[in-house]
Amino acid sequence: MSSPSPTPRTRPGGRTARIRTQVLDAVRAELAENGYDAVTVDAVAARAGVHRATVYRRWRDTGGLIADLFTAAGDIDWQPSDTGSLVGDLTALNQEIQDSLGEPNSIAVALIAVSFRSAEAADALRQLWADRYRQSEVVVRRAVERGELAPAVDARALLITATAPVYHRLVLLRLEPDPELPRRAAESAVAGESRRHRAVLSRRPGM
Amino acid sequence: MSSPSPTPRTRPGGRTARIRTQVLDAVRAELAENGYDAVTVDAVAARAGVHRATVYRRWRDTGGLIADLFTAAGDIDWQPSDTGSLVGDLTALNQEIQDSLGEPNSIAVALIAVSFRSAEAADALRQLWADRYRQSEVVVRRAVERGELAPAVDARALLITATAPVYHRLVLLRLEPDPELPRRAAESAVAGESRRHRAVLSRRPGM
Repeated sequence: MSSPSPTPRTRPGGRTARIRTQVLDAVRAELAENGYDAVTVDAVAARAGVHRATVYRRWRDTGGLIADLFTAAGDIDWQPSDTGSLVGDLTALNQEIQDSLGEPNSIAVALIAVSFRSAEAADALRQLWADRYRQSEVVVRRAVERGELAPAVDARALLITATAPVYHRLVLLRLEPDPELPRRAAESAVAGESRRHRAVLSRRPGM
Repeated sequence: MSSPSPTPRTRPGGRTARIRTQVLDAVRAELAENGYDAVTVDAVAARAGVHRATVYRRWRDTGGLIADLFTAAGDIDWQPSDTGSLVGDLTALNQEIQDSLGEPNSIAVALIAVSFRSAEAADALRQLWADRYRQSEVVVRRAVERGELAPAVDARALLITATAPVYHRLVLLRLEPDPELPRRAAESAVAGESRRHRAVLSRRPGM
């Protein structure tokens, strides 16, 4: 095993953070290349160039390694693009999802695959989805502020409807990415929401 | 192991068909209760009450058992409901999907989970999706005949958009079934398609 530290001195916490990066990179690589069963403390330590005892002490087992992978995925300081229109923002969001799911050895697909192997991973993924959809709600709030949507809109339901076709096509149907799908799915969700809004208005007495 | 045959005589092919039913029922039960790793020739033979040698000869290994499960799932003589309207038909389709995904130990969810474990299962599932979406296209053809949709509609894309939110919510997001989602997703997909159709018409010169 090579040394885990190429530089002799770093700020306090730097070495710990660096080891975590190396270990999680190794988990991602094992997962993507060899699948869940390959994510063992031994394989990950060897690949990361970190002592087995260090990995064992901090992550304990496969479950601990996978759980931390989800934690790291959730830590990313992400926010959706602001394009100036609801369809534009949802299209950009879908494009980002499509790019992430479509890349070789996609970590997003790997996390989804793992969620079918362990209840712990399924819980972690549920939390990650909840965080991402909550972070995406700003797209809907901006549209309400611009007057594109009624304030009563169910932001989460709209976001799920808008993004679902991209996940469905790439993750479950396992079809090739469709360059038109990000916009098409965004437009459908917005058209459905507008139609629902008009239906609600038309049912109100005196309107 | 109990006898595989409770009745002494059946028509030619009857015993073979019955053994297949018993074996595939056992595969489904192992898969749903104990997961992919539990689907071994020994476990399935014991559960089905069929001689191990019979299972080995006909299905060979876990891969063979799983592959036949997909074949059997595809053999079902299924067709979508005819409710008289496109939104009604798509809502009924979504309700059927939601019921199937939501039932305890859902075989549909089990097949999806298995597709993340084996490339062979992933191929079999891809074929199964293709068959189901092709069988569902009659819903779109009927809508075209009624004048609800333009003949140029992309039936597959419309069906994927309409059904994706139900799969996404239940299989990937692992949320509780939402009783309003089957209709909501159907209405969104149809609203999106109508909007697209109007946009195409408005771009044609002279219209």
